[in-house]
Amino acid sequence: MNVLLVYAHPEPKSLNGSLKEFAVKRLEEAGHSVQVSDLYAMHWKAVLDAHDSLDRPAGERFDPSAESRRAFASGQQSSDIVLEQDKLRWADAVILQFPLWWFSLPAILKGWVERVYAYGFAYGVGEHSDAHWGDRYGEGTLAGKRAMLVVTTGGWESHYSLRGINGPMDDVLFPIQHGILYYPGFDVLPPFVIHRTDRVDDARFSTICDAFGQRLDDLWKTPPIPFRPQNAGAYIIPQLTLRPDIAPGQVGFAAHIA
Amino acid sequence: MNVLLVYAHPEPKSLNGSLKEFAVKRLEEAGHSVQVSDLYAMHWKAVLDAHDSLDRPAGERFDPSAESRRAFASGQQSSDIVLEQDKLRWADAVILQFPLWWFSLPAILKGWVERVYAYGFAYGVGEHSDAHWGDRYGEGTLAGKRAMLVVTTGGWESHYSLRGINGPMDDVLFPIQHGILYYPGFDVLPPFVIHRTDRVDDARFSTICDAFGQRLDDLWKTPPIPFRPQNAGAYIIPQLTLRPDIAPGQVGFAAHIA
Repeated sequence: MNVLLVYAHPEPKSLNGSLKEFAVKRLEEAGHSVQVSDLYAMHWKAVLDAHDSLDRPAGERFDPSAESRRAFASGQQSSDIVLEQDKLRWADAVILQFPLWWFSLPAILKGWVERVYAYGFAYGVGEHSDAHWGDRYGEGTLAGKRAMLVVTTGGWESHYSLRGINGPMDDVLFPIQHGILYYPGFDVLPPFVIHRTDRVDDARFSTICDAFGQRLDDLWKTPPIPFRPQNAGAYIIPQLTLRPDIAPGQVGFAAHIA
Repeated sequence: MNVLLVYAHPEPKSLNGSLKEFAVKRLEEAGHSVQVSDLYAMHWKAVLDAHDSLDRPAGERFDPSAESRRAFASGQQSSDIVLEQDKLRWADAVILQFPLWWFSLPAILKGWVERVYAYGFAYGVGEHSDAHWGDRYGEGTLAGKRAMLVVTTGGWESHYSLRGINGPMDDVLFPIQHGILYYPGFDVLPPFVIHRTDRVDDARFSTICDAFGQRLDDLWKTPPIPFRPQNAGAYIIPQLTLRPDIAPGQVGFAAHIA
């Protein structure tokens, strides 16, 4: 199988750097083909702007989503964007690996999403009507592929527990797992999260690698998070609220998991 | 009073651009001093890396938080970072204005947070012991100041309602409002959110400005979101889970609001 690892850490000699090397080796030894988008090493352009298409007349009003749509449809996207879209099409599984900075993706990885997720590629796909609200949340360009987050954080596991002060890790990651990965069609596996990264000695690193290696070995076996598909009956269209008989009375992120 | 508006949209002739102009005028007419950090116009460097301090020896292993701590403490931060920290110290209120891209901050604004929120300034502040877990979540460098999000989105209000498919807007914004604004001490006002931004004609723009103007007039009157302070008794230290008698049985983001 083909695996794309999108990796965002500035220092190769870091815990993240070591885990990235470990993942590539483990996957290749299992017979998979691996490509790595090492965003810092690539000097990835993080900021979405009018320079993301090749032929845009200077001085014209810039509408990010209209321009993304035009450039994608007419083959005028910047070549760095096209390369990443090709890697996503090639991949059977995609891993996003990053340190959790301020409870979200590092800016360089957020900018990868914003620029690579073009209109017509990751959103604005499919029919929008009173019966179907686009191919998204369970359908879309990347349907049939698997995705998984690999996340490091300095915080304690209890700080991200169900009643922990940072909020539950599943909720912290929901805008990424549901809003960025499930949205264009990925089946999303439970994340692999490492806490207290300031306290990783050789023994703990070895324990982490054992668990991480198992998750990589099980990439095609682990059941995905059962997010509810948008167009299969659970939601009223076009309001896109849960039908009253689905998770009755429940509100918040968890209601969108079956 | 002093107001800092941190603004992240690439096109001045946009709804966001018009609202930014409106806000500056309204606040100045009310007698406030306003500074705008227009991140796109400033060509803000979005990516946190080893070039963010002035005197770092080349080739040394880069630990983002250790290096941030050292550069902040020794006065060796990049000048663009120092300028933004000075604006934050100067401000009595801070407004972050942005389009919601993939359920979070645009990369350029996320990178502003990552680089400006230095160790010793926005985190790693105060005593860490078994009785007090740092000056954060209700205490910190920015305590006594107010903050508010101004957010635009193409999605419908119902899609962000309590049972809407994107998750409730309060939950989508929790990692920003609680994790980025409340964390270093801000009192966080309820956000001003504009939905369906593809459908804003002159009449609707005028209605939006009326409501937005009122929120700006009430900047020092609106009650903040009652997030629970970390070190005032609601949390067990150092686990930082809610005490059993606080919001008993409740889990998730909403449990952290009194």
